[in-house]
Amino acid sequence: MANSSLGTLYGVGVGPGDPELITLKACRLLQEVPVIAWPAPLEGESMAHRIAAPHLPEGRIEIPIRMPISTDRFPVEGVYDQAAVDLGEHLSAGRDVAVLCEGDPFVYGSFMYLFGRMADRFPVRVIPGISSLTAGAAALGAPLAALNDVLSVIPAPLAEDELERQIARADAAVIIKVGRHMDKLRRVLDRLGLSDSARYIEYATMENQIVMPFAEAAQGKAPYFSLVLVHSRKDAWR
Amino acid sequence: MANSSLGTLYGVGVGPGDPELITLKACRLLQEVPVIAWPAPLEGESMAHRIAAPHLPEGRIEIPIRMPISTDRFPVEGVYDQAAVDLGEHLSAGRDVAVLCEGDPFVYGSFMYLFGRMADRFPVRVIPGISSLTAGAAALGAPLAALNDVLSVIPAPLAEDELERQIARADAAVIIKVGRHMDKLRRVLDRLGLSDSARYIEYATMENQIVMPFAEAAQGKAPYFSLVLVHSRKDAWR
Repeated sequence: MANSSLGTLYGVGVGPGDPELITLKACRLLQEVPVIAWPAPLEGESMAHRIAAPHLPEGRIEIPIRMPISTDRFPVEGVYDQAAVDLGEHLSAGRDVAVLCEGDPFVYGSFMYLFGRMADRFPVRVIPGISSLTAGAAALGAPLAALNDVLSVIPAPLAEDELERQIARADAAVIIKVGRHMDKLRRVLDRLGLSDSARYIEYATMENQIVMPFAEAAQGKAPYFSLVLVHSRKDAWR
Repeated sequence: MANSSLGTLYGVGVGPGDPELITLKACRLLQEVPVIAWPAPLEGESMAHRIAAPHLPEGRIEIPIRMPISTDRFPVEGVYDQAAVDLGEHLSAGRDVAVLCEGDPFVYGSFMYLFGRMADRFPVRVIPGISSLTAGAAALGAPLAALNDVLSVIPAPLAEDELERQIARADAAVIIKVGRHMDKLRRVLDRLGLSDSARYIEYATMENQIVMPFAEAAQGKAPYFSLVLVHSRKDAWR
């Protein structure tokens, strides 16, 4: 951090989907930095880039970080190793780099892969973004947590017994990464008596946003980024 | 919600303090609505109003909702009863009303008091804001949660044994409303062996922001809105 001739690596939260849910600070920064990078699939469009596109000026150095969709971590690690080298060259030359991050960079974001590889060598700053957690509550139209509620964010890939213990313990829970774990989650919420009051949310704040009772959604498979909101006060979201 | 001649009550998240950490959507809405309300102390300036001030146009109907600072809920309830009447008159006359909310309206926000009184009679929409939780992580410069971490938001006013159980159970915890509960929190974190790795954050993203090791902050009294971040991987924030 002492070498002031280095560029700064910015993790820029671009929000949950609605291009208007980006901050003034993120917009200003995207106007100023010479290099813009973003995670992207091997082919096709990146969500983070699509969200930020209306705010991206022409003529920047653009670096899509393309990676295979895989449950195997090694290919992803390799892609980020290379990205750290590529972005590091710009930073070493004194050019600031902004990495576009869906939601908030520090809330379950893939920015951590670059942060972990680069924060010891380059100055890093994060511009917080609207996370899918608060976007989900806004989409539902009900408070996420209040007063002395304990609010837990719980990844659905956890083992079934641990998932159940964690949900049982919280006053309000946001279950993330629901994706392939719908059947497991349904069993857990059934046992806890929470299936009827839970709410399912898909693509919060986007044009194709879906909000529905969990019981209706629980039959099928869900996109990776869908959420389920649960509250121990079962009438909280009536 | 069926009566389209009614105005809409908007809960507008203005973010954690930095006036640039407001969304484009919130800024646009504040330009459009004829009535703007905000919670305020009996005398002096409101934090939510101060954050939004650079984005507020002239010539709006302005309604500060002034309330005594009190741990007694009844005066506050009375103030919100009256505010619901006052705002309801504008909504009934077809005028949209925006309520400025520090952080995010649905994350431990006082907007819930108006929501609870008005959502059954008037259309309500929330514009999510950057919450102090993500602002705190950005201020600290380290990920709040990643991968399959369970992230819990835990109010410090909880009873000491419950506070300890909840912190012990989470992979990462944000302890909120620290204020008068510093001594209790220090005892809990000492017992859990987490005092040395925990981080203390005050006024995140504001000009007077403070980030320091919890052990250094734990001697004194803290402002109501200060945060403590804890991670079970004790080296997460080194």
